[in-house]
Amino acid sequence: MSGVSISPQTLARTLGQDLEEVAQIGATGRGGISRFAWTDELAQAYAWVAGELEALGLVAGVDQAGNLIARWEVDGGDEGAVMAASHLDTVPNGGRFDGVLGVLGALEAVRILRRRGFEPARPIWIGSFMDEEGTRFGAALFGSRAFAGHDVSASLAATDAEGVTVSEAIAARGMDPARVGEAFVAPSLSAYLELHVEQGPVLDSAGERLGIVESITGVLGFHVIVRGEANHAGATPTDARRDALVGASKMVLALRERAREHSELRATVGRISTSPGAITVVPGECRFTVDLRPSQPEVVAPTIAWLRAMVAEVAASEGLEAEVVSDYELAPTMMDPRVVAALAAAAADEGVEPVRMWSGAGHDAMVIAPHAPTGMVFVPSVGGISHSPHEWTETADCELGARVLAGAIERLAG
Amino acid sequence: MSGVSISPQTLARTLGQDLEEVAQIGATGRGGISRFAWTDELAQAYAWVAGELEALGLVAGVDQAGNLIARWEVDGGDEGAVMAASHLDTVPNGGRFDGVLGVLGALEAVRILRRRGFEPARPIWIGSFMDEEGTRFGAALFGSRAFAGHDVSASLAATDAEGVTVSEAIAARGMDPARVGEAFVAPSLSAYLELHVEQGPVLDSAGERLGIVESITGVLGFHVIVRGEANHAGATPTDARRDALVGASKMVLALRERAREHSELRATVGRISTSPGAITVVPGECRFTVDLRPSQPEVVAPTIAWLRAMVAEVAASEGLEAEVVSDYELAPTMMDPRVVAALAAAAADEGVEPVRMWSGAGHDAMVIAPHAPTGMVFVPSVGGISHSPHEWTETADCELGARVLAGAIERLAG
Repeated sequence: MSGVSISPQTLARTLGQDLEEVAQIGATGRGGISRFAWTDELAQAYAWVAGELEALGLVAGVDQAGNLIARWEVDGGDEGAVMAASHLDTVPNGGRFDGVLGVLGALEAVRILRRRGFEPARPIWIGSFMDEEGTRFGAALFGSRAFAGHDVSASLAATDAEGVTVSEAIAARGMDPARVGEAFVAPSLSAYLELHVEQGPVLDSAGERLGIVESITGVLGFHVIVRGEANHAGATPTDARRDALVGASKMVLALRERAREHSELRATVGRISTSPGAITVVPGECRFTVDLRPSQPEVVAPTIAWLRAMVAEVAASEGLEAEVVSDYELAPTMMDPRVVAALAAAAADEGVEPVRMWSGAGHDAMVIAPHAPTGMVFVPSVGGISHSPHEWTETADCELGARVLAGAIERLAG
Repeated sequence: MSGVSISPQTLARTLGQDLEEVAQIGATGRGGISRFAWTDELAQAYAWVAGELEALGLVAGVDQAGNLIARWEVDGGDEGAVMAASHLDTVPNGGRFDGVLGVLGALEAVRILRRRGFEPARPIWIGSFMDEEGTRFGAALFGSRAFAGHDVSASLAATDAEGVTVSEAIAARGMDPARVGEAFVAPSLSAYLELHVEQGPVLDSAGERLGIVESITGVLGFHVIVRGEANHAGATPTDARRDALVGASKMVLALRERAREHSELRATVGRISTSPGAITVVPGECRFTVDLRPSQPEVVAPTIAWLRAMVAEVAASEGLEAEVVSDYELAPTMMDPRVVAALAAAAADEGVEPVRMWSGAGHDAMVIAPHAPTGMVFVPSVGGISHSPHEWTETADCELGARVLAGAIERLAG
């Protein structure tokens, strides 16, 4: 594969230019970008990225799950590739960095390696996974799940707002949804890398420029039902009440205290309601959701046990009954130490001491990690803002992330 | 008016029989009673009560606001009457005591006084006010408000579920809604008495049989808006959050503590919601209602000041902003010491030491009190249950209430 001829214009492009150009594809006119799964806008972004990678000597194609994959081929075939990827789809009116930076940063990394005249020993794949956000069909991580061999048949039947199924959307692009299983190639990788904006305030508020992810959060979803007694707000003395909302309020505060005391955990009550929900009636019932994000596998069981005990204890102290219902449980995902070390060494080459951190948001990397040694690198989100047109990361930080990606690829594929 | 001839059958009736018979009028078949304003069911109950009172020598009629008023007339005209009343309308599928006991207890009091051969010096009026509950039109206390000279024109335009206005409902019964102002006669009373079931657990849980009300609660209605910052439930560390629900939870608990420490106050948060209300998003906004019931006028201003200060303080401690919006403010109503003394003396005659208490629920008496010396007497609600088919008061307690009413009328009208 050596001796490929690349134009000086292609090598001279910058990541800042790329981010600016791709941000025009699907621009909403409200400052943000809407590029959803299997749409013309996403196909246009794929074509733009594929064109640049082909100009850099890679062979681009779309797999049976709609993932864009461009291959820097080596003698000896496809086995043991080092892959760097993320996603080009967005949330509605989303920002220009979430996902996109991981794809365009990998493109920049290839450009850097080409400028250096790097000759890989292993294949290098640059990718964009189909529908990470799940915006259109509510079936997030579709492409990476297929790539990791998950059964996506339920997702194929999911529909968008117009009633179009994922299968129909695939067929409308001239592909065959029955062949989606052919996308399962994750185990052939020797390493998977993903550059992403943090989507939280940790790096930005500390004035840090780079984070290396050591684990991706688990997600434990529950709802809690607290039952007391509905009563007249005027005629019922304070001490005669069994107020479900009073109990729930204590639980909300106990969850916050637990998360404060345990830096490896985040806890959120996002939704709450009372019944009967009348201004002049003491709440007889209160329901609320609990979202727990443990960063480490060993935190999961003690956290669930604590939640159940805490809810029972608060309920008993207020003369209430309460029930904790588990809705879903995704385990935390550990990053691979060898890949983490490669990223750290590449950061050191740039004179940067990266922050070791965990990701509280889910990513394609979390789906790939069980099948291939995986690592992630974060750059700061200004103000921690994401999923918004106000999402911003300084160009210099984007470039730093791309250089670290390049350095890690060099180490892992050299 | 002496020398009236009353049949032995009329004098021999009991309050228990009366309660049983009136409970059949508007019985729902689901254990409860539905008698709404200006309906045939309510008219039937009026006719039943009017018939019994006429058999006892009173002159019954319905005033221009739809209040049933039966007069035990004396020489010297209508001035300075002692009135005992409540209401015969109910909530949907309501109980057989709320309101009804005050009317049938007053009927029983007349029977007792007739048996004793009592000759009043002042007129005695027995009444049932129109639409205390406001079930059909959402315009509660209609009859007593007209009786107390309030402008009820807004209520005349209120509609029921079928779009019928109060004016149309009045006209449909052959009356003239333009004449509702003629019902304003409250200032002519020398005293107003109301027997009612407690609708709360105070008497029942203490094993007490009788309460004398010293004040009727004020009702202060607010809603509170707490504003923080909506953020990703996974990517936002605990200390970087401005969680509106965490602030609201502290406020809910502070309200409960305030009511615990101040027995002259009740506080209820009946309704709460978060925005955006997503399971995986830290609440950026939380709204909740506050219902405060001060028993004494001097408690009102300090309670409102405390609420505003507490909300501001909690918000500041959590980095939030908060707003307290006042929706309505009804002042507490004090009962008349002379009427309270008459009720207490009548209770002593029965060998009962009544509990001095305040009413957390509103009543017709609260509307009459600014115009005439007013007192209320409570009998226990078993389990504190009201506005339910399970509402219950022991017959012996109902009879005790009626005897105390008779004794107080005797003192005030003698």
